[in-house]
Amino acid sequence: MSLTVETSPIPGGVTAPGGFRATGVACGLKKSGLDLMLLVADHACSVAGVFTRNVVKAAPVLYCSKLVKTGRAQAVVINSGVANAATGEEGMRRCLQMATTVATEAGVPQELVLVCSTGVIGQQLPMEKVAAGIAEAAKALSPEGGHDAALAIMTTDTRPKEVAVSLDTEHGTIRIGGMAKGSGMIAPNMATMLSVITTDAQVAPDLLAVALRTVTDRTFNRVTVDGDTSTNDTVLLLASGASGVRLLPGTEDFARFERALYRVAEYLAKAIARDGEGATKLVEIWVHGAGDDAQALTLAKTIANSPLVKTALFGNDPNWGRILAAAGRAGVAFNPDAVDLDLAGVPVVRGGQPAPFDREAAAEKMKASEVIISLALAEGDGEAVVWTCDFSYDYVRINADYTT
Amino acid sequence: MSLTVETSPIPGGVTAPGGFRATGVACGLKKSGLDLMLLVADHACSVAGVFTRNVVKAAPVLYCSKLVKTGRAQAVVINSGVANAATGEEGMRRCLQMATTVATEAGVPQELVLVCSTGVIGQQLPMEKVAAGIAEAAKALSPEGGHDAALAIMTTDTRPKEVAVSLDTEHGTIRIGGMAKGSGMIAPNMATMLSVITTDAQVAPDLLAVALRTVTDRTFNRVTVDGDTSTNDTVLLLASGASGVRLLPGTEDFARFERALYRVAEYLAKAIARDGEGATKLVEIWVHGAGDDAQALTLAKTIANSPLVKTALFGNDPNWGRILAAAGRAGVAFNPDAVDLDLAGVPVVRGGQPAPFDREAAAEKMKASEVIISLALAEGDGEAVVWTCDFSYDYVRINADYTT
Repeated sequence: MSLTVETSPIPGGVTAPGGFRATGVACGLKKSGLDLMLLVADHACSVAGVFTRNVVKAAPVLYCSKLVKTGRAQAVVINSGVANAATGEEGMRRCLQMATTVATEAGVPQELVLVCSTGVIGQQLPMEKVAAGIAEAAKALSPEGGHDAALAIMTTDTRPKEVAVSLDTEHGTIRIGGMAKGSGMIAPNMATMLSVITTDAQVAPDLLAVALRTVTDRTFNRVTVDGDTSTNDTVLLLASGASGVRLLPGTEDFARFERALYRVAEYLAKAIARDGEGATKLVEIWVHGAGDDAQALTLAKTIANSPLVKTALFGNDPNWGRILAAAGRAGVAFNPDAVDLDLAGVPVVRGGQPAPFDREAAAEKMKASEVIISLALAEGDGEAVVWTCDFSYDYVRINADYTT
Repeated sequence: MSLTVETSPIPGGVTAPGGFRATGVACGLKKSGLDLMLLVADHACSVAGVFTRNVVKAAPVLYCSKLVKTGRAQAVVINSGVANAATGEEGMRRCLQMATTVATEAGVPQELVLVCSTGVIGQQLPMEKVAAGIAEAAKALSPEGGHDAALAIMTTDTRPKEVAVSLDTEHGTIRIGGMAKGSGMIAPNMATMLSVITTDAQVAPDLLAVALRTVTDRTFNRVTVDGDTSTNDTVLLLASGASGVRLLPGTEDFARFERALYRVAEYLAKAIARDGEGATKLVEIWVHGAGDDAQALTLAKTIANSPLVKTALFGNDPNWGRILAAAGRAGVAFNPDAVDLDLAGVPVVRGGQPAPFDREAAAEKMKASEVIISLALAEGDGEAVVWTCDFSYDYVRINADYTT
C-alpha cells in the first residue's frame, strides 16, 4: 500500500497533528546524541496502547499498560540508553519519578503521563540526569519538535523513523503522525519496539484501542530483525481531538481513519525492518496458499528469522534451498512437491523441484535495497506478509559489544 | 558425564568395534578434501535410525527411513558437497543408483545399503563422480578406516568428530564407535546432522531403536547452532554382533550399553556445538526449576538460539539482560521476580534483580572455551541442558557465500 492512496504525506512527525508539542534533548544517558524525548498535548487525549508479551516486562511497560486502561493521557516521556528492565522495585520507583517530574515541569496531571524506556537491560536509570533532561525538555516543547523527538528515541537505529499524513473526511481534515525506533531485539509479538502515533481526530478510547490492535497485528507484529522480542515493546496512540473532527464507529470516515492509521504503522514497521541492526536491505516475505493465515504467518516468520536465509540475503547468494528448509521446519504441514518459490522476482522452484535460472543474474537482482521472497503452497487460501532484513557482519559487530 | 565412567576411550572411530571396515575418498564433489565415505560390515547388522522432522526431506532421508524399518543393514555410503534435497524424482533415482553401485562394488545386497548426503540443497548429484568414488572406496575399505570416514563427511566442519569406547560386560567386552558432522543448519528436532554409530554388541533391531531414540533425544536433539533444522538430519546405529556379546532387554548389561551409547552420542553432540560455523566457544545452557522438563527445554533452546545472546557470547559481553529477555519470550510462564541467573560462574541476577558483579572479571571468564549459562526458576522441578556456540563474524562470512 502506498501512503498516497486516500492520504497525503505531510511533514512534522508526531507534532503534525494539531494539539501536540514535542522535543528531544541530550541528558547524558547515551554516549552522544539526543536521548530523552517529551511529547505533551494541550489537553487530555484519548489513548490506546499495546505492549510486549515478554514474561519479563520492563517497569515502564508495567506502568503504562495499567495507565492506558483509563483511556486518557496527556504526555509521553521516553528515554533511550537504559531500558529500566529487570530492575525490580527500585526500577518501578524511578519510572514513577519520571512521571512525577514530567507532571511538575510540564504542568500535566501525573496520572496522565506515560513513560517508556529503551536501551540496556538490568541497569538503573541515573535519575539526576533524567530529571535535568525532563526539565530542559519541558522548556523546549514545540509544535515543530516532532523530528527531534524521533531522534531522541534512537538506540542503534541509524536514522529516525517518522511519518505523517493528512486525510480529508466528510467533516474536515484530520492528521496522523508517528515515530518509531527499532533496530535490534525486534520480533514484537504484540507491539513493536517503541512507537508513538498521534492524531488530531476525536476518537473514543475504546474505539482507538480496537483500531490500534487491528493495525498493530498487521504491521508492527509483522516485523522481525532477529527473533528476539524485547522487554520494552510499546506502541502508543494518542488522539487530541484538536481537528474538531469526531470519528464514530461504523462510519466510512472511521474506516478511512483505520486505513490511514494502517499506512502510517506500515510505513514505520517497514522503516524498522529496513534499518535493522547491520541491515543492508529490506526483505519482504510473502506466503500464499497456506492452510490458513496463521500457518502462512508462521511460515513467513520462520523464513524471516532463519540465520542461514538472512546471511545468504546479505551475500546476495540465491541459495534458495535454505528458504525451503526453513519453511519445512516451521511446524506447518504442506506438500513439498507442490511448492513454488520466487526469489527477487526469479522463479527458483516450481512444483518442489529446482527451476533452471541464471545464478549471476539472480545474485544481481538480490543486490536491490528491497528483495521479495514469495513462497506459494497448494494447501489453501492462507497468506501473510512479513518484513525483515538481512544478517551482516555489522549485526555481529554491533551486538558483540553493546554494553561494555 | 565423562567418557571414562564405566567405559574406556579407545581409538578407531566407527571401525573400532569388530566387524566393520570403512574409508573416505575424494571424488570431486567438494572443492578439496575427502567427500565420500563408505562403511561396510562383514555381515548384515541390526540397524536403527532417526531422521529429520523437516517437512522437506532429502531423497536419502526418505530412502533410509524406509529401509531401517527392516531392522537390517550392512553398508552406509555418505557423500558431502551435495545434499540431494529438493531434487524431486530425479534425486531419488540418483539416491537409489548410489545404493546399487555400492551393492555391485562392495558385494553387499542392495537392500542392505544405507545412503546419506550432506551439502548444498537443490542440486543434482554428479553421478559419474559419485560412482567412481564408490568404486575407489570399495577397494580401500579397511578396519583402520574410521578416521578417513569421519573426514569425508565434513562440509564446513573445521575438524572431524569421532569417538570410540570399550565397555566390559558380564559376558565380554563390547565396543561402540561413532562419527558425526555438523557445523551449520544445526537444530535437529529429532536427529542431528549426520552421525553414524557402530557397535560390535549383538542387539535386536527393536531394542537398538529404543536405545537410539532415548539417547538421541537427550544428546543430538539438545544441540543447536542456528535454529535451522536440516532437510538431511540422520543418525544411524549399526550393531555387528562381532563381539559375540548378546544384549537382552532389562539386563544390567543393556543398561550399561545404553549409558555408554549416551556418552558416545553426548561427546559427538558437544563436538558439533563446539565446532558450529564460526564458533569460538562451546556454550552449555542449564535451566532448573521450570514447571516441567519440556518447559525447561523450551527455555534453554530459546536462549540458545537468540542471536543477541550468541553475539554477546562472541564479544565476551556479560550483557545478561538479553538472556532474561530471551527466556521471557519463550512462551513459558514463570515469575520473573524469582529468577536466578549465573553467567560463566558469575551470579548476575538474584531474585529477578541485578546482582552486583565485576564486569571486567566476568568478561574475562567468558573468554573460556566452554561457558555455562545457568538459569534457575522457582516453578517446579523441570530441568534441561542444551549445547550451543557463539555467533561470530565468521558465521556470517561462511554463510553469506556458500553456494556461489
